[in-house]
Amino acid sequence: MQPFNVMIDWNSGTMSEGDRKTRRVSDMQGMYHNQAAARDALDNGDPKIYEYTTIQLPQESDHVLFGTTTVFPGRIGSECFMTKGHYHEQRATGEVYVCFSGHGRLIMETEDGAGKVLEMLPGSVSYVPPYWAHRVCNVGDEPLIFFAAFPGHAGHDYGSIEQSGFSVRVERYGDEVVVVDNL
Amino acid sequence: MQPFNVMIDWNSGTMSEGDRKTRRVSDMQGMYHNQAAARDALDNGDPKIYEYTTIQLPQESDHVLFGTTTVFPGRIGSECFMTKGHYHEQRATGEVYVCFSGHGRLIMETEDGAGKVLEMLPGSVSYVPPYWAHRVCNVGDEPLIFFAAFPGHAGHDYGSIEQSGFSVRVERYGDEVVVVDNL
Repeated sequence: MQPFNVMIDWNSGTMSEGDRKTRRVSDMQGMYHNQAAARDALDNGDPKIYEYTTIQLPQESDHVLFGTTTVFPGRIGSECFMTKGHYHEQRATGEVYVCFSGHGRLIMETEDGAGKVLEMLPGSVSYVPPYWAHRVCNVGDEPLIFFAAFPGHAGHDYGSIEQSGFSVRVERYGDEVVVVDNL
Repeated sequence: MQPFNVMIDWNSGTMSEGDRKTRRVSDMQGMYHNQAAARDALDNGDPKIYEYTTIQLPQESDHVLFGTTTVFPGRIGSECFMTKGHYHEQRATGEVYVCFSGHGRLIMETEDGAGKVLEMLPGSVSYVPPYWAHRVCNVGDEPLIFFAAFPGHAGHDYGSIEQSGFSVRVERYGDEVVVVDNL
């Protein structure tokens, strides 16, 4: 394989190449706590929640897969815009995030019931260890833009956490950010 | 393992935690083409060439190891300040670089004699595929700061490329940057 460069646009968080995907309310309607607010959002233009770009590389442990994500600012009811979140298909694999701009929370939990929420802000590097599901919420007023790198063999399992839901959600009231238990 | 955050200082490129190392001319004197200039630099304060910080994580393929590097601006003779450069001990492993600031060149080559030089500038993401030795040169007037992520089992082999030397070097004359064959 030949070495290559791609460029990150610091303002949009997109990369000059790669596979770009958009997630709207309609792609994750059931994940928000306030279902009436989710339906309202759907009826009012189905806004973009986040976009991500990943580079196609062999899905093998010797490669480091990488991409950028932009979570837009906004709320569904009081709940901050967020990514779907996932476990890795290979549970034992980790991931590292570098935040370029914006302000967020990284919600993590394990199948054993452990939970952790970290702050994301410009310059923060977050390590998601093996076995932790991870979801990112934008708690600010600007796009939250970050870079992610993970082992090539990690794979993505969105289904398990979609079924159970994360144990907590992140809400914002005025300038106050609150982590709320999902009962 | 518990999730954790570290902070990158955008100005210095250092991380708030981790194992920080400094490389001076005296650590890599023999790697520069102009040996008289290297001796002069050594006698004149033995300047810092680069610093890097890595986070201690298990050296296993399920983990993504990461760190930041700052290559200072400067030259030994006409040759730009650069990292030692290395192969991965596990040759089949790749690495990804994200450049935050400064201007550089990423010199790569394989044991089969292939060579490639990529530009590094703010927002550039460079993929070093398996089997490519890699070295970074600062061709600008400001510190060159970048983030690196690689598979936990990669390991570092500095010796092989130190013995053979890289096939090219990067020199600068005024504002002109030149890639020169090392004969």
